[in-house]
Amino acid sequence: MKALVLDESREVSLQEVPDPELVDAGDAVVRVTQTSICGSDLHLMHGALPSAPPYVLGHEYVGVVEQVGVGVHGLAAGDRVVGPAAPWCGACAMCRRGQIQLCQRGGVFGSGPTFGGLGGAMAERLRVPHADTVLSKIPDGVTDEQALLLGDVVSTGMTGVQHATAGPGGVLVVIGCGPVGLSAVHTARLFAPAEVIAVDRVASRLRVAERLGATRTVDASTEDVAGVVGELTGGRGADGVVEAVGLPATIAQAVELAGVGGRISVVGIAPRPVELPMPQMLFKNLTLWTGLGDLGHIDVLLDQVARGVLDPSPMITDRIRLDEIVGAIGRFSEPANGVVKYAVSVG
Amino acid sequence: MKALVLDESREVSLQEVPDPELVDAGDAVVRVTQTSICGSDLHLMHGALPSAPPYVLGHEYVGVVEQVGVGVHGLAAGDRVVGPAAPWCGACAMCRRGQIQLCQRGGVFGSGPTFGGLGGAMAERLRVPHADTVLSKIPDGVTDEQALLLGDVVSTGMTGVQHATAGPGGVLVVIGCGPVGLSAVHTARLFAPAEVIAVDRVASRLRVAERLGATRTVDASTEDVAGVVGELTGGRGADGVVEAVGLPATIAQAVELAGVGGRISVVGIAPRPVELPMPQMLFKNLTLWTGLGDLGHIDVLLDQVARGVLDPSPMITDRIRLDEIVGAIGRFSEPANGVVKYAVSVG
Amino acid sequence: MKALVLDESREVSLQEVPDPELVDAGDAVVRVTQTSICGSDLHLMHGALPSAPPYVLGHEYVGVVEQVGVGVHGLAAGDRVVGPAAPWCGACAMCRRGQIQLCQRGGVFGSGPTFGGLGGAMAERLRVPHADTVLSKIPDGVTDEQALLLGDVVSTGMTGVQHATAGPGGVLVVIGCGPVGLSAVHTARLFAPAEVIAVDRVASRLRVAERLGATRTVDASTEDVAGVVGELTGGRGADGVVEAVGLPATIAQAVELAGVGGRISVVGIAPRPVELPMPQMLFKNLTLWTGLGDLGHIDVLLDQVARGVLDPSPMITDRIRLDEIVGAIGRFSEPANGVVKYAVSVG
Amino acid sequence: MKALVLDESREVSLQEVPDPELVDAGDAVVRVTQTSICGSDLHLMHGALPSAPPYVLGHEYVGVVEQVGVGVHGLAAGDRVVGPAAPWCGACAMCRRGQIQLCQRGGVFGSGPTFGGLGGAMAERLRVPHADTVLSKIPDGVTDEQALLLGDVVSTGMTGVQHATAGPGGVLVVIGCGPVGLSAVHTARLFAPAEVIAVDRVASRLRVAERLGATRTVDASTEDVAGVVGELTGGRGADGVVEAVGLPATIAQAVELAGVGGRISVVGIAPRPVELPMPQMLFKNLTLWTGLGDLGHIDVLLDQVARGVLDPSPMITDRIRLDEIVGAIGRFSEPANGVVKYAVSVG
Repeated sequence: MKALVLDESREVSLQEVPDPELVDAGDAVVRVTQTSICGSDLHLMHGALPSAPPYVLGHEYVGVVEQVGVGVHGLAAGDRVVGPAAPWCGACAMCRRGQIQLCQRGGVFGSGPTFGGLGGAMAERLRVPHADTVLSKIPDGVTDEQALLLGDVVSTGMTGVQHATAGPGGVLVVIGCGPVGLSAVHTARLFAPAEVIAVDRVASRLRVAERLGATRTVDASTEDVAGVVGELTGGRGADGVVEAVGLPATIAQAVELAGVGGRISVVGIAPRPVELPMPQMLFKNLTLWTGLGDLGHIDVLLDQVARGVLDPSPMITDRIRLDEIVGAIGRFSEPANGVVKYAVSVG
Repeated sequence: MKALVLDESREVSLQEVPDPELVDAGDAVVRVTQTSICGSDLHLMHGALPSAPPYVLGHEYVGVVEQVGVGVHGLAAGDRVVGPAAPWCGACAMCRRGQIQLCQRGGVFGSGPTFGGLGGAMAERLRVPHADTVLSKIPDGVTDEQALLLGDVVSTGMTGVQHATAGPGGVLVVIGCGPVGLSAVHTARLFAPAEVIAVDRVASRLRVAERLGATRTVDASTEDVAGVVGELTGGRGADGVVEAVGLPATIAQAVELAGVGGRISVVGIAPRPVELPMPQMLFKNLTLWTGLGDLGHIDVLLDQVARGVLDPSPMITDRIRLDEIVGAIGRFSEPANGVVKYAVSVG
Repeated sequence: MKALVLDESREVSLQEVPDPELVDAGDAVVRVTQTSICGSDLHLMHGALPSAPPYVLGHEYVGVVEQVGVGVHGLAAGDRVVGPAAPWCGACAMCRRGQIQLCQRGGVFGSGPTFGGLGGAMAERLRVPHADTVLSKIPDGVTDEQALLLGDVVSTGMTGVQHATAGPGGVLVVIGCGPVGLSAVHTARLFAPAEVIAVDRVASRLRVAERLGATRTVDASTEDVAGVVGELTGGRGADGVVEAVGLPATIAQAVELAGVGGRISVVGIAPRPVELPMPQMLFKNLTLWTGLGDLGHIDVLLDQVARGVLDPSPMITDRIRLDEIVGAIGRFSEPANGVVKYAVSVG
Repeated sequence: MKALVLDESREVSLQEVPDPELVDAGDAVVRVTQTSICGSDLHLMHGALPSAPPYVLGHEYVGVVEQVGVGVHGLAAGDRVVGPAAPWCGACAMCRRGQIQLCQRGGVFGSGPTFGGLGGAMAERLRVPHADTVLSKIPDGVTDEQALLLGDVVSTGMTGVQHATAGPGGVLVVIGCGPVGLSAVHTARLFAPAEVIAVDRVASRLRVAERLGATRTVDASTEDVAGVVGELTGGRGADGVVEAVGLPATIAQAVELAGVGGRISVVGIAPRPVELPMPQMLFKNLTLWTGLGDLGHIDVLLDQVARGVLDPSPMITDRIRLDEIVGAIGRFSEPANGVVKYAVSVG
């Protein structure tokens, strides 16, 4: 089959590779119909996330089940499905404790042998382990594009909002309008904040934030973010802040913007230790959570899309075919180009 | 009346000062029967906490109601009571949001005009505002010594445990066995951890931790704390950590000791910003809370003491009279002297 | 002043009665600008709720503070305010446990000596005890009509939804579209259900439900309620049901409509014991809550109205002056007349 | 193999039956070392629970894994295990919603074709589906007898307490000291109530309740239950009540004993609809939950037993061999005989 391979010299190219096969009784082989490009693919290419090429890249996908292992009972060939970027078994000690992101028999698709040797989704076919547990059938009326992002960025954005929310009616700030931040802006409606303030420095991203439900957008390159938040909260500060950048300055800003009793959720991946103003945090009674996205939200998200409550497809700003993907990665890597997410048609 | 006065030169001395009087309709005047010395009294004396002497020190007290204002309905002269170090009104915007520690009509007793100009409890009498809301009658069968610490360190320790606990049966670590840490060790039983591991470098404090319910004590000056926690958790790390020291090294240790999905509660007061290992925290799905003690726990604590579930009195290692207090402050300031808390008899 | 008096023969008439005065240090006297008529006023008139006339009726009000007692610090003459139907002290044993509906120094306005001897709000003036604790200032931009219903039916409806909701994205059914049921329909948006199904037998009420946010209305006199719920849930039943009628048949219907793991909240006041199908409930893992409205929601509700998230004023279907109230009560008592709530202008 | 068969005439006898075999990739075959007799076995024998004999009875077991299917990765022959009375797949729509008790690919062991056709545990071998998901390895230091009851009554008792508890330090009443009620008494310590009041009419059961942690036992045949609860709560009623009988009178008693804001959990299986005093419940702000035991608690329970926090083995009052089981069922069916639970040695 055709697949995008990251090779030992960290170059990518479309190549012919062997088709995946059923290995375990719980496996399914999925024919990929759409995939996408993620910021972490760039990190793998540049070595910012460690991995051991060569391997096929990609961890976002919708597709159609082609084959299932003898232990799979809830899926059959022909089912249209979406699944998580990182599958989990549901049975190991980590999964039994609810920490499916750190499943002992899991891994991340398209990240090489380092993370479990799973295949990549920028390919015509993908072997999905623990298929009964992790794949979700896409309801009629939900398009592939609406489902494509649920298994990674949308679930992660929702996780961020969940940890930044204590109750309904609050003021939520989302710092950073990349795909995860935009997903937080959009899924915020599942937690009923009164205001969703989206912050970024790229105007095109703020326009997408508006389409996805931001009640106020703030261009941090020209506006006073703290001033806006103060004004919208009568000076008391935000009830919740989702930090979706991962830089020391924006993490510090999250603490600054939060009001007394506030909740901060850091889903941006900080590469280094960060200095936090603990004394101020103490006098604000703050909670700070940081962690990986909970990809167990896919079913709820699909249901909300089917009901018309959510529609993440405005995040898909560009559509290409798999054989255009090498060039597209270059355009994707520069936010000023205005690409938020690609839908990459496969086959 | 007789009271301990901190003067402009930051010296303390017992002096004759005017008796407090009812000022507001909601006030009570309490005749203090016992008071105590707290680490924050030392901070005020040394200027580590800002204040504007002269004023009467002290914020821990049990006593007997002498007079109540015309707006007080739930208390009468003769009632034996305990109250919080920092009273709250229950009606301002902060209180209505549940943030009573930051009440807009509150303050901290014995901290001078800076914090609201309330009197100090190292005195024969104390004016308590919002008396109906903040004072609790001490049930028969609960001694003054059992009640004395509930309004400050015990409530703060309980707050720490509350934020470090997600469910029953976990492994809880308490770093630092000063009065707040010991209170966390003791009130942990209200949250049903399977293990309470108490960590300190002073052997006498670890012995008190044992009496208060620690299932394991670790002398950090001679033992490998991470090794002990690893052994007691099958290598997975603690479910909760209460940090009751406030130093960068012990806050970092809290992160190190926490397992995946763990909760860290920092009740130690850090004087400066602290560098936190955000990348490791992200891969552990950690929650970190920091804040002031919730002094609204006094009623629950009193009830538990009355039922024999709790008894914080082993923290009272020394008993003196008010006229011995100046010398006692010196002994208290050096942990190696083995004083955890004084009960200071007044009158 | 002028007030609506219920006399010993259970007749109502507008009469001249003495103005209320400040009694307690915590009291405020409020000049009522608007009041309303509630179903429980009818119950008091008909003796279905016990009381000891004569007294002034009414417990819904917005107004302007005229006088405050010496213990009131957060309010001043001239403040525009809304308050609860049943004030609470915030300091008694019940209030300290969070059960403000059953405050030991509380009562219900306009219900006679039986419930504490508080005055009634169908009058030109009202004495409000515990004023600092229970009255809320109405923000500029929120009209009297928008605030009028927050202190009783809207808070009660929100309480119902709160107890019928476990998380976002569910299907909520509200049985009964009287004022409390309509308030549940409207405040449901604070809990982010995907669907809000409003059920009643009066077409005009269902039209109000639509305006307030119902995603589907069901006329129980002509439609198959269980069929509709089954269709909208893929046959699995509702996630939450608010029962706002109080009849055995509708309580049983709530159980029937709930799916596995569902939550039922009964805010309708059943006059008698009710037979519940416990065996079916057990196999559905159901939670049933029943209780009085939590009137502590007023601040949150006011904030949401100010932000434009909520607007309960479509419930006000008719506007009259206080001197028209006797005739209006008659029209109000018959749902087919299409009156949901009156705004009664006073003075 | 040897097994206890319930035949078409509802008689039980030990018979030679074929050994179970691996059917599905996720199956394990377990050699049973201990089994037990449960009240629901009696209901199946008497037809009070519907089933279609003949089949092998029994759903409580510890044993040793003999064989695993090709899809099982976390278990191997020789592992000592305990598992649930009703296995679940972890992947169907019900399981994904957390309702594992109603798994679409589940069933109850030893209840005949009606409930999924799973084998029974009163046998030398048992086929366990979804083995990776539902079986738990028994830690060294936990005996078979300590583990035997975790997969049914202890998990169910814990579920009952969980739904009857809102926070630490409350007064919990357990009505009925059969195996589920006694399990509630014992697992209550995981939720830190201040008092656990055990109620029954059989003195020997109350003595077991004391050994398992009841702080007060009440013989309902001679003592005034409401009087005792009133005395221990200062007249305010219980914070939580676990009803483990299932009769209308004891369910009504649960409502009577609960105080304002209380939580009632009905784990007793009522055969018929029950009349509930809804008006009183409303004025008490009560929550009533009823449902099946959550058997997903086994891992937590095993960990607590291993740490010495729990030890349910005092419930095992009698020990027999499998070939004595027919006579034992007769003795078990009459509480006055003093048998709480048998440990039945197999093989």
